[in-house]
Amino acid sequence: MIPPDDRGFTLGDGLFETVLARAGAFVALSAHLDRLTAGCAVLGLPAPDRAEVERLMRQALAGAGLAADRAAVRLTLTAGSGGRGLDRPDAPVPRLVATAAAAPPPTTPARLITAQVRRNDRSPAARLKTLSYLDNVLARAEARAAGADEAVMLNTAGALACAAAANLFWIKDGALFTPALDCGVLAGIARGEALARAAELGVAICDTTAGPEALAAAEAVFLTNALIGVRAVAAIDGRAYAPHGLVERLAKALGR
Amino acid sequence: MIPPDDRGFTLGDGLFETVLARAGAFVALSAHLDRLTAGCAVLGLPAPDRAEVERLMRQALAGAGLAADRAAVRLTLTAGSGGRGLDRPDAPVPRLVATAAAAPPPTTPARLITAQVRRNDRSPAARLKTLSYLDNVLARAEARAAGADEAVMLNTAGALACAAAANLFWIKDGALFTPALDCGVLAGIARGEALARAAELGVAICDTTAGPEALAAAEAVFLTNALIGVRAVAAIDGRAYAPHGLVERLAKALGR
Repeated sequence: MIPPDDRGFTLGDGLFETVLARAGAFVALSAHLDRLTAGCAVLGLPAPDRAEVERLMRQALAGAGLAADRAAVRLTLTAGSGGRGLDRPDAPVPRLVATAAAAPPPTTPARLITAQVRRNDRSPAARLKTLSYLDNVLARAEARAAGADEAVMLNTAGALACAAAANLFWIKDGALFTPALDCGVLAGIARGEALARAAELGVAICDTTAGPEALAAAEAVFLTNALIGVRAVAAIDGRAYAPHGLVERLAKALGR
Repeated sequence: MIPPDDRGFTLGDGLFETVLARAGAFVALSAHLDRLTAGCAVLGLPAPDRAEVERLMRQALAGAGLAADRAAVRLTLTAGSGGRGLDRPDAPVPRLVATAAAAPPPTTPARLITAQVRRNDRSPAARLKTLSYLDNVLARAEARAAGADEAVMLNTAGALACAAAANLFWIKDGALFTPALDCGVLAGIARGEALARAAELGVAICDTTAGPEALAAAEAVFLTNALIGVRAVAAIDGRAYAPHGLVERLAKALGR
C-alpha cells in the first residue's frame, strides 16, 4: 500500500517500466533497468539498486501466481514521501513498487485514430515513462470513444510522435521510418530492437520529423512496445493498410 | 493508504484541489468544488458528492490537529483502481483522499526564473489541476536550482502561461494583464478573485496572449493562488520590480 503523501500519487513525480516475463524470464531486463536509471538522472532521483529491483519483480510475479505464464511486471519508482507543495525533500527517498498481471498478446492488427491531445515535446518528461501519463490516458480514451484501439499522438508542433502506449513506424518505398526522439518520443526498448533488426535485414532506416501526411502516404504502419513487440496497424482514421512482408518479418524477429 | 493499482498512483489519472482553511473555515470552498466537478466532466469521471468531500476535509483537518490553525487541505480525486494499461475500467469508481498540513503564508516577494520546461497548452489537462504534475515539478526544480522561489512557465508556442504553482499577472500603464485561459492556464480561484477585485477598482483588465517580453516591459508582476492570495514578484531572471500600489491593494482585497 502507498501512503497518501507519496509524490508519485500526489504529483505524478516518478517513473515506471513494464517488463515482459515469459515463464519467469524477463525480456530485455537490462535495457529496462538502464532506461530507468537514465530517467532517474533526468528527474534528479537516486537510481535504485538493480538486484533489489529484480528481487521485487520476482516477488511480484510469484505473489501473483504468474511465475510460469506470460505476464507483465510493472515497476513503479516514485520520488517517495514529501511535504505539501511542489518542492521535493532535500534528500528524497524513492519508493519502489512492483506488480504483476497476466499479459496475453494482442491477436489482431490495431485500428488507430489521430488524437486531439498533443504530446508535450517541450518537456524532458516526453522522453521518459513517467507517472504523469494523463495526456496518454486521454489520447487512448479518444481512441476508445471512436471505436479504435490506439491513438496516434502528434507533438505540439504537429509532427508525428508516437501512439499512446507504443512507438510508431511506417514503411515507404521499402524504407523504414520512425519519429526521431527529439519529437517527444520515448526511446522504446522494442523501438530500438526494431531499428536494429531492420538494419540487419539491410533495410534503409530514417528517424525523422514528419507530419501525419507521411502516414497517409505509407505502404504500411506498425507499432512497437516491450510487451507486444511489433503490432501491425490495420487502419488510421479510416484509411486501411494491407499486410506487409517487412512488418511480418520484424514481428517475427522481435518475438514476444 | 492507497492501493498500488490506483490510477492516480500509476498514471496520474486524477485531479486535486488545495483549499485554505482558517480556523476551520474553508476559503472559497464552493469555487473549489465547482472546479473539481468541472474537471471530472473533462476527464470523464463521476463527480464526488459535495457533502462527502466536505466531511472528508473536516476529518483531515481535525485528524491533523489543525482545526484552529491556518492550514491547507488537499483533496485528491483519482480514477480509482484499474487493471494494467491505459484503459479505464468500464465504470471507474473514483477514490477520494483528503490530507491537511500547516500552511504559513509566504512573507517575502517571490524571485522567479523562466523555466525551460514548457506548459502543454495542447492538452485539456493544462487547464486542470491534475495528478500528472511532473512538468510543474520540473519547472519548480529549475527555479530552486537557480536559487529562485518559483518558475515562469511558457506554453509550447512560447507565450506566457503561469508559474509552477500560481497564476501570473503583470501591470503596464496602469492596466492589469494575465495570460488567457487558452494559453494553457488553470482557471485559478484567486485569479478569478483578482480579476473581479481589479474590475471593482476600475482597473482596465486584459486576459491576453503575450510573450515573455511583456514581463520585461511591466511595471509590476505578481502571482496568485488559493493559499497565498496575491504574492508580489521581486525579480524575474534578475530583472527587479519595485513594490506597486495596485499589487498591494489587490493583496489586501484578496486577503488570505
